[in-house]
Amino acid sequence: MKASEPPKRVSLGELGERGLIRRIRRSAAAAGAPGVEVGIGDDAAVLAVPPGHALLATTDLLIEDVHFRRASAGPADIGWKALAVNLSDIAAMGGIPRWALVALAVPAETDVEAVDGFYSGMAEAGAPYEVAVVGGDTSASPGGWMVNVTLLGIHPGTPRLRSHARTGDAVAITGRLGASAAGLHALEIGLDRTRAAGVAPDELDEAMRAHLRPRARVAEGRWLGQAPGVHAMMDCSDGLATDLGHICRESGVGARVGLDRVPVAAAAWEVGRALGREPLDWAVGGGEDYELLLTCETDAVERLTAGLLDATGTPLTVIGRIEGAAGQTVFVDAAGAAVPVRNGFEHFRG
Amino acid sequence: MKASEPPKRVSLGELGERGLIRRIRRSAAAAGAPGVEVGIGDDAAVLAVPPGHALLATTDLLIEDVHFRRASAGPADIGWKALAVNLSDIAAMGGIPRWALVALAVPAETDVEAVDGFYSGMAEAGAPYEVAVVGGDTSASPGGWMVNVTLLGIHPGTPRLRSHARTGDAVAITGRLGASAAGLHALEIGLDRTRAAGVAPDELDEAMRAHLRPRARVAEGRWLGQAPGVHAMMDCSDGLATDLGHICRESGVGARVGLDRVPVAAAAWEVGRALGREPLDWAVGGGEDYELLLTCETDAVERLTAGLLDATGTPLTVIGRIEGAAGQTVFVDAAGAAVPVRNGFEHFRG
Repeated sequence: MKASEPPKRVSLGELGERGLIRRIRRSAAAAGAPGVEVGIGDDAAVLAVPPGHALLATTDLLIEDVHFRRASAGPADIGWKALAVNLSDIAAMGGIPRWALVALAVPAETDVEAVDGFYSGMAEAGAPYEVAVVGGDTSASPGGWMVNVTLLGIHPGTPRLRSHARTGDAVAITGRLGASAAGLHALEIGLDRTRAAGVAPDELDEAMRAHLRPRARVAEGRWLGQAPGVHAMMDCSDGLATDLGHICRESGVGARVGLDRVPVAAAAWEVGRALGREPLDWAVGGGEDYELLLTCETDAVERLTAGLLDATGTPLTVIGRIEGAAGQTVFVDAAGAAVPVRNGFEHFRG
Repeated sequence: MKASEPPKRVSLGELGERGLIRRIRRSAAAAGAPGVEVGIGDDAAVLAVPPGHALLATTDLLIEDVHFRRASAGPADIGWKALAVNLSDIAAMGGIPRWALVALAVPAETDVEAVDGFYSGMAEAGAPYEVAVVGGDTSASPGGWMVNVTLLGIHPGTPRLRSHARTGDAVAITGRLGASAAGLHALEIGLDRTRAAGVAPDELDEAMRAHLRPRARVAEGRWLGQAPGVHAMMDCSDGLATDLGHICRESGVGARVGLDRVPVAAAAWEVGRALGREPLDWAVGGGEDYELLLTCETDAVERLTAGLLDATGTPLTVIGRIEGAAGQTVFVDAAGAAVPVRNGFEHFRG
């Protein structure tokens, strides 16, 4: 640390907005990323989209006590997740994440250390992809923390859309589901109570990490986005039932999913076992797993499954088929009987 | 109104997030704008930056009781201003505004009508420039309203930066200053009290409009951004003293401004006269006028002033010169004596 840096435990009220912006700019400048002609410090960032590439743009809002609680999520967790949820949107298009604009509002009495933690968590989440923070805004907040990240990406070809599913396609998902909702449940009822129920520590850690520090499937999205035979793709952030519903509505198709084929995370099984909860509920309705949900030609399944595992180490599991009445998603048990499933979270509704 | 549309006085709690998104999407789709390959409704927007153009990106956060008060700013005012402040940033680069991503958090009990008002105010502000809303996020808010707009623009040439000022340049500003701060002052002390003080109604309206519905200098920015002889440019949002300080710091130069040359808005004079306040304080330290502050070659002044007035109807006034010690902005009175001036608002500081 240089002598000129402010000491720890300085509040934003003492540092002021301009001091904070200088601090953010110093740390962002260190990143250095492709295509940044002018970064933080002017009225707008100036960026170069490579010739022949489409521009991708997505934005996500994270609000204290709606999207996270400060009691369980540290500043670095919040920074990580604010970028990760946007990385996941770019991944779902098969795109390359590039530039982030970050708006942060915190109470004036917040320690500078906490704000530094937020930006370092975000830098950590973006480092593997050379994502640069090229702009932003800061404000005092009369309430809790509020974060908005806009992430820009590029795509050299044709992005995979939600509307590209075709009747007869296989429905598949990367990785495993339910760990994030299991982690949220453990945090909400309290870690002491969760531990007392006898949850294995490794699985509890995994569930909490899945919820607090989700990993976007960027490499998987790039690979799948270029692979022949993949049709529709989206990220599974609102829960499998809700998100597959989006694909069906946008594509004008229906879907049938075998509940016994849904890959449930080991952490969800373990937390569910100890706490007497059904892990499949978390896997189907929980959301925030940030896996990629896709539809593809059935004769491409074997090639895609082997290829994705080989390229990224991530499994791909076929869970159902595009069929039936447009806009309808039917979940069935092993015997083929329809099972009603819980939908994911929706803002504004209780 | 079609029979299928929800009736008025529906709260967001009844409509739900997905109902709201469908509503926003319907109204955004109507806009239709260049370069939008995929708008609202997928994981990310897909946009086409024209060949040979740089991409510009800026973001601004507006928070209830920090940036606006619901008692004085209606939903349409908030929507208008949230876009206008970003339009001003793109204007300051000499760019063309294109695509907006809008994040909005409001209490669940908010009427749908209010949210419609917000988006229609935003559409009104963006309509002259064919700005399309291509993405966003919505959330319930545990506190008041929070808005974040990211605006993307394009630039066919070389953007004007804050760092381009050169010693010997003239310092000039578009339009007139102080009306926005006068309007804010009138709103803060209460319109009844302001009217009782005998402020002329037309000037009061003008001051309030300047504060609630500022007009970004987009056409002026385009014209000045292409005009030979213009060096540094930025938008005057934090107040003349603060913003000229930014240009000086970024360019490694100093500046000297004649207070008697600063163009003060008629509305600021009138509100100041009636309320016994100094309008020059508002013009120099008030901020939020969203005029363009620039430096240019002295022998280009006459051509720029006549040309800008002719092209846009907006006056350009020379207020000083780039000179003196780097990083220092000196304000002088008509006799040439230095006068201390109040800086603009800074977040986190009292």
